Amino acid sequence: MPDADRVLKQLGPQPLMMVLSGPSGVGKDAVLSRIRELGYPQHIVVTATTRAMRPMETNGVDYIFLDQDAFDKKVTDHEFLEWAEVYGNFYGVPKDQVREAIASGQDVIIKADVQGAATIKKLNPHGVFVFLAPPSFDELEQRLRIRKTEAQIDLDRRLETARDEMQQLPLFDYVVVNADGALDDAVAALESIIQAERWRFPRRTLSL
Amino acid sequence: MPDADRVLKQLGPQPLMMVLSGPSGVGKDAVLSRIRELGYPQHIVVTATTRAMRPMETNGVDYIFLDQDAFDKKVTDHEFLEWAEVYGNFYGVPKDQVREAIASGQDVIIKADVQGAATIKKLNPHGVFVFLAPPSFDELEQRLRIRKTEAQIDLDRRLETARDEMQQLPLFDYVVVNADGALDDAVAALESIIQAERWRFPRRTLSL
Repeated sequence: MPDADRVLKQLGPQPLMMVLSGPSGVGKDAVLSRIRELGYPQHIVVTATTRAMRPMETNGVDYIFLDQDAFDKKVTDHEFLEWAEVYGNFYGVPKDQVREAIASGQDVIIKADVQGAATIKKLNPHGVFVFLAPPSFDELEQRLRIRKTEAQIDLDRRLETARDEMQQLPLFDYVVVNADGALDDAVAALESIIQAERWRFPRRTLSL
Repeated sequence: MPDADRVLKQLGPQPLMMVLSGPSGVGKDAVLSRIRELGYPQHIVVTATTRAMRPMETNGVDYIFLDQDAFDKKVTDHEFLEWAEVYGNFYGVPKDQVREAIASGQDVIIKADVQGAATIKKLNPHGVFVFLAPPSFDELEQRLRIRKTEAQIDLDRRLETARDEMQQLPLFDYVVVNADGALDDAVAALESIIQAERWRFPRRTLSL
């Protein structure tokens, strides 16, 4: 039965595309920073945005900061895997980064809002979709307040959106709770998911 | 939207039932011994068997060694989740151990041959099914030879069965290769799968 021999040869871990999503303020950036700090070998896609750079952020590391014209040109040239306007700012996932990571056999992690995750799932259902959830909406509100980057009206809108986004949970393969003061637990959960999903059967096919 | 609040409260890691399967000689016992040594908190079900104890094995730790009458009585009393005759010896998964682990909120790991895994999947499709694969059939043959517990005719039969079992791969959620000299990698893969699957969505319901 040479078939069985051939099947064995094809087994083994393989790189994956993980999409990390969740409501605004839940801590997606904090989790990804921590993963970057820990030096994991995954390629974390740097999102392009038109929003203003916040203190402590670095262009090209936290985001690729673009003016509206440059962003619009990339939209026109189909250079984004997915893009969206969120509360007046634009965000886009650069296709070239994802392509390069896949071509080099690296795991790739994409940050996206819930609507963006839905779009990416249509393009590549073989990705691993993770929803980062707050322990409660009270906690989410507190985090958004501490961030102090939003006016009260924006804050209310973000909380309302966050509640709506809970309806989209069935899109996701995993829901990881980012509990208060337990960022490392969420990071460890994500790392386990990446390690585990490399062995998922049947093997996933990544393409763009 | 109180619904969204309620959904959040129900999230979080939850214990799982993992079924570890794979061909005879692939290293299921070695992997589980290592997991036991490392002191992971999972409950590893101790299989009951009528086969003779091998050197280095401990009754109640590696297997529960029973004579044929005692085994048959447990079959009659429906005390096995699953049982089978394999090459003239009988093996059974004690239901009480699985029930106790689930009731205490522990992860539970069950070792089963491929046919047994299929039976357990029918009883509880919410389990996580892992196939431990050899890197090649040549390697599997060598391992069975080193074990020296089988006559040549048994060895050939086991290898033939192993090839047949490859047809059952679609039963499994993960296929982990137990490469030569890389037992710790297989153990790490299993540990990642356990950690990751606790966050799987939708949440699994374990029952027996």
